[in-house]
Amino acid sequence: MSETVIALDAMGGDHGPAVVLPAAARALAEHPDLHLVLVGDEAVLRDGLGAIPAAHRGRVELRHASQVVAMDEPPAQALRSKRDSSMRVAVNLVREGAVQACVSAGNTGALMAIARFVLKTLPGIDRPAICTAIPAIDGHTYVLDLGANVALSAEHLFQFAVMGSVLCAAIDGKASPRVGLLNIGEEEIKGIDEVKEAARLLAASDLNYVGYVEGDGIYLGAADVVVCDGFVGNVMLKASEGVAKMIRHYMRETFGGSLYGRLAALVAMPVLRRLGRRIDPRRYNGASLLGLQGIVIKSHGGADALAFANAIGIARAEARKQVPERIDSELEKLLGARAAS
Amino acid sequence: MSETVIALDAMGGDHGPAVVLPAAARALAEHPDLHLVLVGDEAVLRDGLGAIPAAHRGRVELRHASQVVAMDEPPAQALRSKRDSSMRVAVNLVREGAVQACVSAGNTGALMAIARFVLKTLPGIDRPAICTAIPAIDGHTYVLDLGANVALSAEHLFQFAVMGSVLCAAIDGKASPRVGLLNIGEEEIKGIDEVKEAARLLAASDLNYVGYVEGDGIYLGAADVVVCDGFVGNVMLKASEGVAKMIRHYMRETFGGSLYGRLAALVAMPVLRRLGRRIDPRRYNGASLLGLQGIVIKSHGGADALAFANAIGIARAEARKQVPERIDSELEKLLGARAAS
Repeated sequence: MSETVIALDAMGGDHGPAVVLPAAARALAEHPDLHLVLVGDEAVLRDGLGAIPAAHRGRVELRHASQVVAMDEPPAQALRSKRDSSMRVAVNLVREGAVQACVSAGNTGALMAIARFVLKTLPGIDRPAICTAIPAIDGHTYVLDLGANVALSAEHLFQFAVMGSVLCAAIDGKASPRVGLLNIGEEEIKGIDEVKEAARLLAASDLNYVGYVEGDGIYLGAADVVVCDGFVGNVMLKASEGVAKMIRHYMRETFGGSLYGRLAALVAMPVLRRLGRRIDPRRYNGASLLGLQGIVIKSHGGADALAFANAIGIARAEARKQVPERIDSELEKLLGARAAS
Repeated sequence: MSETVIALDAMGGDHGPAVVLPAAARALAEHPDLHLVLVGDEAVLRDGLGAIPAAHRGRVELRHASQVVAMDEPPAQALRSKRDSSMRVAVNLVREGAVQACVSAGNTGALMAIARFVLKTLPGIDRPAICTAIPAIDGHTYVLDLGANVALSAEHLFQFAVMGSVLCAAIDGKASPRVGLLNIGEEEIKGIDEVKEAARLLAASDLNYVGYVEGDGIYLGAADVVVCDGFVGNVMLKASEGVAKMIRHYMRETFGGSLYGRLAALVAMPVLRRLGRRIDPRRYNGASLLGLQGIVIKSHGGADALAFANAIGIARAEARKQVPERIDSELEKLLGARAAS
């Protein structure tokens, strides 16, 4: 198997190297083809290398970066004044072709601004989008945009549909992913003009467009890819996390509330643990910044080693499947067909 | 206790009288002050009256209506050509002052169109909104709009904030409900212009405005009232329902998957049942069409008797607290203060 080389912003996120190093160790153990470039304060990283077993250390390289982008730093400032930040250097390595992808748990706005500035969007793509797979009954659903863009034209939504479709086809090996547009269900008041126009563009394209999907359809398997603007997508994702947290809170309270509850919890524990694994958000950690000339994966800022290792796995998969190149050729094909028709 | 008289669209929803009659029986048993006017096909309703115990039947009146609005009927058509529908007659009774509120499980778009046409909005309110209480850790959160309006100005969002705040104060008896605006968390790309401008209007008002709330904040108790446009609100609500359905599906699968799982489920059943009651969507059934000169409550179309009875309870509570009158006086006060400043 050919090598896959990925840069990690080792200083980003709430925990920095304390999470990135053990995550690197996990990912290296899991993927024999994986080589990692850890970007950050070299002295700190060298001190922490003990987290990576000696057998895998030959596949790790350190790259010094003198600055760190703070989690609450305004993106414009990070872009302007943090040219030697671990985040920026990791993205630079993608542009230079030294690595095939990079992963950062740092500030999303800054990562998007830097990635867009350094890598540029693909031809025909106006704006990058944030996309992630969300667990659904019988699988998962790719949803984009999750927060990069708040006001979108129909053409933007169309481009996102192409990007999501290519990602799903490349990663899951689906020949013709079902693409839906997020909308609301009331008759008279259905949707907004941009969504309606995007529906016309998609219906006329060669994508496997399956129509409007309502909020619950994301979780019930109504489509493989669901497209929306970043405001709606972000609210939807965060609200879903909120529901899951509330249910976990209620479960703890209910099972902890009485002696019978605590005994029942003991008996049910193996089953509850299996349930927990199935809906563990860490196993879905890693959002793709799609539409760029390069692969950039955003890990949740508070990710632990298991979650960050999952984001590395996503970067590796997208690199091996050459997702940006595929988006480029698919978009060219679809726009060519539209122009010819 | 003074009487509360409420009209029920007895033909609406997926099940019509088969649900409305037993729901009426439940509500009458629960609320001794409650009088109901059942609107619909009188022969059918008279046949079904056995569902209501004789002891309560003295508090029930029938009102004939010869038509029914279909669940998939376009609102404009329902408004124009169904002037003797059970839905329309129930709303007419509110306008005439014959009842203090009405409840329908019919088509949302038609109900909104009819209610708006017949009752008109309150002075100073441009558009009605759909609002419901959503379960949250330690209580519930009122969210509006849930689907009536897809593109809103800052002034509309401000009006919705007033309506939500009044509803929460009236129903829950909170002196100064915390009001938040739904927004996304990324720094540079925070929100849309209308939301930012609404934030300025709210911060300058006498409402207890607590700032932006992200999607998860709805479920984690970040505010008592959360305001958003109807597209975002509808997607948020439906996605939340989707998550809850998915978790229930996984639980059934996990507990049903092995002999141990089935035994564990047996032991855990009383606890799981208690959990189920806490997050039972039927106990939250009943959305308010706020901003009208009258009280109209929308029940879920698929509601069962328990759920529909809950919607009747909401109508009763709003009637007893005179919610429309309170919205009117609160808005006048707030706009007066704004004009004077």
